Amino acid sequence: MPGASDRLCVVLVGVRNPLNIGAAARAMSNFGFLRLRLVNPYHIAFREARSAVGAASLLADAEEFQSVADAVADCTLVVGTTAVRHRELQHPLRRLQYGARLIRKELATGRVALMFGPEKTGLSNHDLSYCDWLMNIPTREQHISMNLGQAVAVCLYELARDAKRATPAKKPAKKEKLEKRATAGEVERISDGLLEALHRSGYVKPIAAASTEERVRRLLRRMNLSSRDAELWLGMLRQILWKLRTAEDARQ
Amino acid sequence: MPGASDRLCVVLVGVRNPLNIGAAARAMSNFGFLRLRLVNPYHIAFREARSAVGAASLLADAEEFQSVADAVADCTLVVGTTAVRHRELQHPLRRLQYGARLIRKELATGRVALMFGPEKTGLSNHDLSYCDWLMNIPTREQHISMNLGQAVAVCLYELARDAKRATPAKKPAKKEKLEKRATAGEVERISDGLLEALHRSGYVKPIAAASTEERVRRLLRRMNLSSRDAELWLGMLRQILWKLRTAEDARQ
Repeated sequence: MPGASDRLCVVLVGVRNPLNIGAAARAMSNFGFLRLRLVNPYHIAFREARSAVGAASLLADAEEFQSVADAVADCTLVVGTTAVRHRELQHPLRRLQYGARLIRKELATGRVALMFGPEKTGLSNHDLSYCDWLMNIPTREQHISMNLGQAVAVCLYELARDAKRATPAKKPAKKEKLEKRATAGEVERISDGLLEALHRSGYVKPIAAASTEERVRRLLRRMNLSSRDAELWLGMLRQILWKLRTAEDARQ
Repeated sequence: MPGASDRLCVVLVGVRNPLNIGAAARAMSNFGFLRLRLVNPYHIAFREARSAVGAASLLADAEEFQSVADAVADCTLVVGTTAVRHRELQHPLRRLQYGARLIRKELATGRVALMFGPEKTGLSNHDLSYCDWLMNIPTREQHISMNLGQAVAVCLYELARDAKRATPAKKPAKKEKLEKRATAGEVERISDGLLEALHRSGYVKPIAAASTEERVRRLLRRMNLSSRDAELWLGMLRQILWKLRTAEDARQ
């Protein structure tokens, strides 16, 4: 969706830890959302964060605002993130999976603000009052509060997750699928080699030879070998057989 | 899915930054995956990490290992995470969304290791040789490398995401589906036996020993052995090895 990801703004409100700003920026860069807005950042934190791995230009382009109102003014949808579940929320609360779908829909034509609050307290009621609805990441009851950088990463991952599905998808059929399977003849040669090794080493009791042969053949078929792996096996067996044969010759 | 999340181990290999260990632990606690394993952690980092917000007991219970082999020995599926896409990977590479589905399926009956590598370098080829397949998080081409704590959070979010929907899973009808997979420890024993046979028969050139070891390990993991077949292989190898050893003794 060209341009759509450019219409999402990640808004960090009152974030104190430079590492968190950096981590948020890095996740944004990873998932292709490049518009960062900061409301009342602690300036030292902001400056330090600029060293975030691989996200320097994103941070250089980040916009600063004095208030949430200003930061979201041009957005058609404002979504606040929260860990809280049972507090009396004044807003509809949506799970990330569903919320992301609504956000993607809006991004087709509008501009969306995705807001994250300060580390300790989260978004205040005042901040929330700018939101159309709230979104949470489903976490374990016993430990609902996520690290800020990780929460940003998970939200953006979900937002990008199905966007890709819209595009024509994978063109190179997976390498593994292209891998040619071994022919029955190749497998049979491995089977022969292995059986000879087993005979020479006394694994096969003459009385049970036929059933061993079948067991070995079934075993090899279950392995579902590729042609390349079959070759590898044949090479190894050839060498082991050579050794077993010369050992016997030496004895005689 | 009761118990299933308890069968996932997050394995951090050689992680240096205490903040990253703490962040990983916190995300694990958020999403209800409580088993953390550390391979060669830097001890100061580990100790400092124990202060991770809300995840103290998880970190106190974390297990330490000297090698990847030990850390994944009891797992029936080993998945490595990587940012790399275009390097010549020796493994199938799956996108998180699809990979998570496979992991959830395996968790219904087996134990899964989800491995993350050191911050700068990611998992080494040696680490990867223990993996059944690799998984990546779809990120922007221009910035594919994620922060470790965020990558852990996103992976676990995806794993927990559809868990509820996945639960009603119908019983596997076919008997073959019930077949227990071999643990990484069992596969490693086969790998050891096969390598010894290859050494003794001169297949392994000393100069290429390490890469052969990795190739053999990957080969065996691709075979996707059941526990029963693993036993069969071990029995056969034992016998072949016995023969190779006695042949050598006879010469001396």
